[in-house]
Amino acid sequence: MNIQDLSFIEDLPSGELDFYRKQATFHWKKLKLVFEDPERIKTKLRVWKALKNDQAFQTYDCEFTLEQQRRLAALQLSTFRKHKFLPDNIQTAPLEDWLRHFMTVGQALLIVSSDAIVKIVVDLILAQMSVILLGNESHKEFAEAAWKSLKPSAFALTEVAHGSDTKNMKTTATYDESTEEFVLNTPNFLAAKCWLGNLSASCTMAVVFAQLHTKGLCYGLHAFMVPIRDPKTHVPYPGLTIKDCGKKVGLNGVDNGVLMFHNYRIPRSYLLNKYANVTSQGEYLTNMSSPGRVFSSTIGNLSTGRASVIQESSEYLSYAVTIAVRYAAVRKQFGPDKETEIAIIEHQLHQWRVFPYLAAAAVLKVFATKITEKYITLLIESTKPNSTLESSKTEIHVVLSAAKPLTTWTCQDAIQQCREACGGHGFLEASGIGTLRNTNDVRVTYEGDNNILLQQTGRWLLKQWNGLKEGVPVDSPLNTCSFLNNHVVILIQKCSAKNIQDVQTYKFLEESYQWLITYLLQESDAKLMEMFEASGSLFTAFNDSQVYKTNVLSKVYIEYVVLTVYWLRIQEKNIDENVTRVLKTLGTLYGLWCLEKHLVYFYEGNFSAQCPLSKLIRDAILDLCKTLKRDAVSVVDALAFPDFVLNSVLGKSDGKVYEHLQAEFFKDPAKRSEVPEFIKSKL
Amino acid sequence: MNIQDLSFIEDLPSGELDFYRKQATFHWKKLKLVFEDPERIKTKLRVWKALKNDQAFQTYDCEFTLEQQRRLAALQLSTFRKHKFLPDNIQTAPLEDWLRHFMTVGQALLIVSSDAIVKIVVDLILAQMSVILLGNESHKEFAEAAWKSLKPSAFALTEVAHGSDTKNMKTTATYDESTEEFVLNTPNFLAAKCWLGNLSASCTMAVVFAQLHTKGLCYGLHAFMVPIRDPKTHVPYPGLTIKDCGKKVGLNGVDNGVLMFHNYRIPRSYLLNKYANVTSQGEYLTNMSSPGRVFSSTIGNLSTGRASVIQESSEYLSYAVTIAVRYAAVRKQFGPDKETEIAIIEHQLHQWRVFPYLAAAAVLKVFATKITEKYITLLIESTKPNSTLESSKTEIHVVLSAAKPLTTWTCQDAIQQCREACGGHGFLEASGIGTLRNTNDVRVTYEGDNNILLQQTGRWLLKQWNGLKEGVPVDSPLNTCSFLNNHVVILIQKCSAKNIQDVQTYKFLEESYQWLITYLLQESDAKLMEMFEASGSLFTAFNDSQVYKTNVLSKVYIEYVVLTVYWLRIQEKNIDENVTRVLKTLGTLYGLWCLEKHLVYFYEGNFSAQCPLSKLIRDAILDLCKTLKRDAVSVVDALAFPDFVLNSVLGKSDGKVYEHLQAEFFKDPAKRSEVPEFIKSKL
Repeated sequence: MNIQDLSFIEDLPSGELDFYRKQATFHWKKLKLVFEDPERIKTKLRVWKALKNDQAFQTYDCEFTLEQQRRLAALQLSTFRKHKFLPDNIQTAPLEDWLRHFMTVGQALLIVSSDAIVKIVVDLILAQMSVILLGNESHKEFAEAAWKSLKPSAFALTEVAHGSDTKNMKTTATYDESTEEFVLNTPNFLAAKCWLGNLSASCTMAVVFAQLHTKGLCYGLHAFMVPIRDPKTHVPYPGLTIKDCGKKVGLNGVDNGVLMFHNYRIPRSYLLNKYANVTSQGEYLTNMSSPGRVFSSTIGNLSTGRASVIQESSEYLSYAVTIAVRYAAVRKQFGPDKETEIAIIEHQLHQWRVFPYLAAAAVLKVFATKITEKYITLLIESTKPNSTLESSKTEIHVVLSAAKPLTTWTCQDAIQQCREACGGHGFLEASGIGTLRNTNDVRVTYEGDNNILLQQTGRWLLKQWNGLKEGVPVDSPLNTCSFLNNHVVILIQKCSAKNIQDVQTYKFLEESYQWLITYLLQESDAKLMEMFEASGSLFTAFNDSQVYKTNVLSKVYIEYVVLTVYWLRIQEKNIDENVTRVLKTLGTLYGLWCLEKHLVYFYEGNFSAQCPLSKLIRDAILDLCKTLKRDAVSVVDALAFPDFVLNSVLGKSDGKVYEHLQAEFFKDPAKRSEVPEFIKSKL
Repeated sequence: MNIQDLSFIEDLPSGELDFYRKQATFHWKKLKLVFEDPERIKTKLRVWKALKNDQAFQTYDCEFTLEQQRRLAALQLSTFRKHKFLPDNIQTAPLEDWLRHFMTVGQALLIVSSDAIVKIVVDLILAQMSVILLGNESHKEFAEAAWKSLKPSAFALTEVAHGSDTKNMKTTATYDESTEEFVLNTPNFLAAKCWLGNLSASCTMAVVFAQLHTKGLCYGLHAFMVPIRDPKTHVPYPGLTIKDCGKKVGLNGVDNGVLMFHNYRIPRSYLLNKYANVTSQGEYLTNMSSPGRVFSSTIGNLSTGRASVIQESSEYLSYAVTIAVRYAAVRKQFGPDKETEIAIIEHQLHQWRVFPYLAAAAVLKVFATKITEKYITLLIESTKPNSTLESSKTEIHVVLSAAKPLTTWTCQDAIQQCREACGGHGFLEASGIGTLRNTNDVRVTYEGDNNILLQQTGRWLLKQWNGLKEGVPVDSPLNTCSFLNNHVVILIQKCSAKNIQDVQTYKFLEESYQWLITYLLQESDAKLMEMFEASGSLFTAFNDSQVYKTNVLSKVYIEYVVLTVYWLRIQEKNIDENVTRVLKTLGTLYGLWCLEKHLVYFYEGNFSAQCPLSKLIRDAILDLCKTLKRDAVSVVDALAFPDFVLNSVLGKSDGKVYEHLQAEFFKDPAKRSEVPEFIKSKL
């Protein structure tokens, strides 16, 4: 693609960043096309153009009350929906026609309204998708009516006293033959459904998980479609207690709520019955081998939420590094003599603080895109009749369960580091970074606590290892750990790197990670066995072999998977060689920086017996930071959002940090307090 | 001290935490007396009793506007002052009579109003202390009038484009002989004084740092006392531009502002002239050897602010772990069988996430108290005539410069970990943790960027090392690094630990840290030399030897100093032996957990050649977590604030987490929006 073809991406304004932009070794627009294909960029630009001209999406300096924030988020959601970026008939249209598209337009909405995106993801990706994947035709009609009404639905899994341990939820749905209804009950406050987005003000419908009882037996957790409010009057139905969760650390535009049922009756047909059903006479029917299988198949269909979170945190990561890198290129402090001050991006320590997160942003963005594509493809395939993708579905689930912790944690760390790297000015709300920390924060614990999610990955890896011990090759159709078949040879390998050039290669990263994963798998398995012998309990043994072992194993595994996905992508043929070079620098920096955190294992396991590994890796990291310096601003340009979207006084593309700060500080204080009438009247 | 004597500390209510409280191996009140002596506890209880009954310090569920938040903080400050916890004549009363006392009553205010504490610290510890330490009698009168008026003063050092690099500030104060005045000017917006607490609404006076010019020469940065508003009308004087910084990520009750001078005239006598003066004819006079010395002596007197931050973050750390540990003891999730769920404090991974921060809270609390005492003693001594404490003052400055980064970072990490350890409920504003993250956050970058502060420590250590190379013993009157005199022997030592008992000792920690500091000092020095030879510039060489070297050296040094201070304290004779045992567990856990982060150096430098060091340390950490489990709740009881102060639905001392959550969720929504009239009328 030549420069002319890139004209749909607007040029950046001249300003304080020119000094570094001129030094770049590649064209930033060409890099942008590696991060996102032209169609996707165009779609997002179209969305942003629409939102930029819409009153609901402007930056208001005034203070909104909690109530007004809720209404503004609802207004943003309905405004977004009215732009018709998404079809009205999601329940009946083929999934492939709109799911990928949503991932793109949702990403565009994400940064403009962190509240509205949560509301729509809860609605579409959790509630509506549950109906699509677990329901039948009649359910779809009901759900589609909710969707068309623009009132977002809620998703009720978590309870006050139960989060990660989903199987132990206490809400009950007891079948009453006499009326052919399920009777929903919340035994006590501990079992109240909790933190439900869209619950306290917006929804007319919720997908609710409850223990299904019929004829005196409990069959475990099942999903039900539950009417919450009268669609005409928006008044909640009797038999429900609905409370608002109150103020949160962030995302206060989202109406999270608490929901309790008191003999609340719904028709039998509201059970989402793809895997199991109850007949009018109360017979429980399933083609699954056990109730446990029904539950895991039900829950297993919900990884789309996890894929969304990965994408969201990856975007936030780009957001944070954009601000920190641009600020570092403009902010000057200290210098070789009294008269000269140099930009803080020139300081090695500052590069080392920020650039690994820049590299992480690039790598995780490529990964998030690729893995979501893969996931969606598999999901759509699996909805077709006679699909035989069980192993692939399991493996992608394992990958997503570890990638969500990796991405959300990396993002949260990056935000904190970038905030500090902007000094006091980073504490200004208009810098955008502090608020982002509060916004991303929730992602670290929702969709499950990160450490618990990692256990799913760990379990699967240990299962593969057990197979290997019995001579069964690993079951890895996605090829994330096929190398384990070679475990005997891998474990006796030693690192042979001699200089930093040797370690600045994908080959080095691949070999090191393969050794590390194999080593940790062996160690984790040994620890598990040791603990099992000591305690006689698998539960205890599994818990007591997490720290330093299985927990790290899962993290290391996903870092490796991320790198392999990234490397496959950047080796595609159509990439400009200057761009490829910087992509390799970014990938190598990210890989070595991740690897450095695990250095001790290389010593412990003797992989480093023949080389000064820590010195090589650390020198290589500093060398890559130095290399990246001239390109950092342009990498950020390729990752960055348009100024309207970024909306940060420190991170604008013209680099005029101090002019924007001045404008911010000199704003009319009156505008900060009063909500303008034209928007107030809409709330 | 027997149990009767402990009755001034209230017993804790019975509830869900009893299960673990009954298992404790020591009496929590006795531990509390190690953290704080009885007089201090009584003082704080007295303050809290007063505030608890005061309308200004209640928890209001309603939303305040930015303007109302400012007024509430101002009201809290003046209310606090009216309780007369502090004398009216601080400028003339002896420093020793009230400075220690302030550190106690300030700590009590800290958690109740995070805004008011910032306002009073800026006033008293920065502005008023500058006058006390740098001014003469006539200044004191002026400053005391400001203090008595209850309008807190501002402190103007930082400029928009200059923070850490203080010497490069651009505000000028040019002496005009004809009127015997200094003329203050802000050359451009980049030189505007920025982020000044108390500036935009409260202060009548500010201490301002400006480049002193007289007779055409510039003598560097000096401090001036500058009137800002008419004390009678509170109207700002002409010649000043004052702007509000607007919304911040936290601390929105503090009126941070921007200040610019336009030919703003102040009398000659308003120069704080302890180290230098200008005669009426414009002659610059100083008894210092150079203007650089004037500046460093001026700034050197301001470490009290750093000591405050150390105390504050140490208290916040206690706050965070109190909530996370109590929640972990109540929250149940997963279990060995379908019916049984166990408290998450029982899970090894959860212990490992939270307990090291619990240990850090205990260790840093003891350290913060001791080091502040030492600092104040030295400060007061040094104000006496003919004081000869230069080396001690330098060394305490070096310690505080590294302790501030250690404490603020540890606290920020702890808050994030504790927030995650409380799952979704930790995201609730009423949990208190999220807001705390925003409150502590500012401390990571104020009083100087943490990494830059660490450089001051690094420089001093390198200077000691250079002395040693020339046969000069280290100059360490506070004994923080006298062991370096033994560097030749230390460097050839190898770790001889054989089992986890060997590493769970202070002796092991001491030997390991002494080796590590010496090794890193040698490495840092070698790197510095190497970079100097390569670049020919000391500036470049110093910058390029920070990462992995001098920067880590400074961190390791302060961890060691913290441990030595802690260990000295817990070996004092009057401590109950059961309490000593748990204090040793906490200290060892903290020490090993810190050491673990540096494990690679032990391999790199061959210290671990004769033992499986990583395995020993890690097994020892897990073993200590297990030991600590039965005592964790009681350790927290000894660290915790009364419920009114803690003000967290998740962390109350009765452990009734779900009851408090229910009460929170079931609050009348109307109360959340409307500001009650009785408080509104006071704002």
